[in-house]
Amino acid sequence: MGESGRKTADSIFTKIIRGEIPCAKVLETDLLIAFLDIAPLAEGHTLVIPKRQVERLEELSPAEAGAIAAVLGPLALRILKATGAGDYNILQNNGAAAGQVVPHVHFHIIPRREGDGLGYRWNAQRSEPAKLAALAERIRADA
Amino acid sequence: MGESGRKTADSIFTKIIRGEIPCAKVLETDLLIAFLDIAPLAEGHTLVIPKRQVERLEELSPAEAGAIAAVLGPLALRILKATGAGDYNILQNNGAAAGQVVPHVHFHIIPRREGDGLGYRWNAQRSEPAKLAALAERIRADA
Repeated sequence: MGESGRKTADSIFTKIIRGEIPCAKVLETDLLIAFLDIAPLAEGHTLVIPKRQVERLEELSPAEAGAIAAVLGPLALRILKATGAGDYNILQNNGAAAGQVVPHVHFHIIPRREGDGLGYRWNAQRSEPAKLAALAERIRADA
Repeated sequence: MGESGRKTADSIFTKIIRGEIPCAKVLETDLLIAFLDIAPLAEGHTLVIPKRQVERLEELSPAEAGAIAAVLGPLALRILKATGAGDYNILQNNGAAAGQVVPHVHFHIIPRREGDGLGYRWNAQRSEPAKLAALAERIRADA
């Protein structure tokens, strides 16, 4: 991240939206498109993106965020039906440290099956209630 | 999954919503609440859930999905400010094979820092364009 001009340069996704790069499209509305990832983690791995090029989730308008969220579940059901998978993850990465590669907001729909070896690395540890309460207070105070 | 009556039993999240179990709340609206995970993957790990108890994303109404999506980005920014993390993942798991434990839809906001060892297991392989096009056709045909 941090290269000058990166936000204004066309991302590969903007080229896909414009039809300059082909894609296996599964859905299109006025605000978003959805297409199969060319390097899928599982059969049916799909990306849902806003047509407007912004880098991170917090830059989406409420209308854009709402439009994307409203299609994720119904579209996932169609993907599961077409692939035979039963479950799925929704994943959306913001920033290089979070695994974001293309600087254009994208939601992953990742079909899941028992024993597929995918998933989020989980290494959770219980936190003290008093510590959580103090942190929640700091987050609320910034609203 | 599959235990009879599971969907109608109160989840731990419904007990939190009702105030029967305490939580470190960071946000509440008419449709959703957000609170700190008691077993966080990182400081500030937050769950955003609909007040109505449904198990999977595809069961949310468009209004519920939209309301949740609209708060994720702005709330994530406040969490990053309070914790000093720069990046974040949004993760939402549907079904046991996808890592879902509590049968009540929840979106994770997971703050990320360089070298934290978190993230999604990535083992992607390029797929043939013709195979993707055929799958996309099957998914579209089901719309």
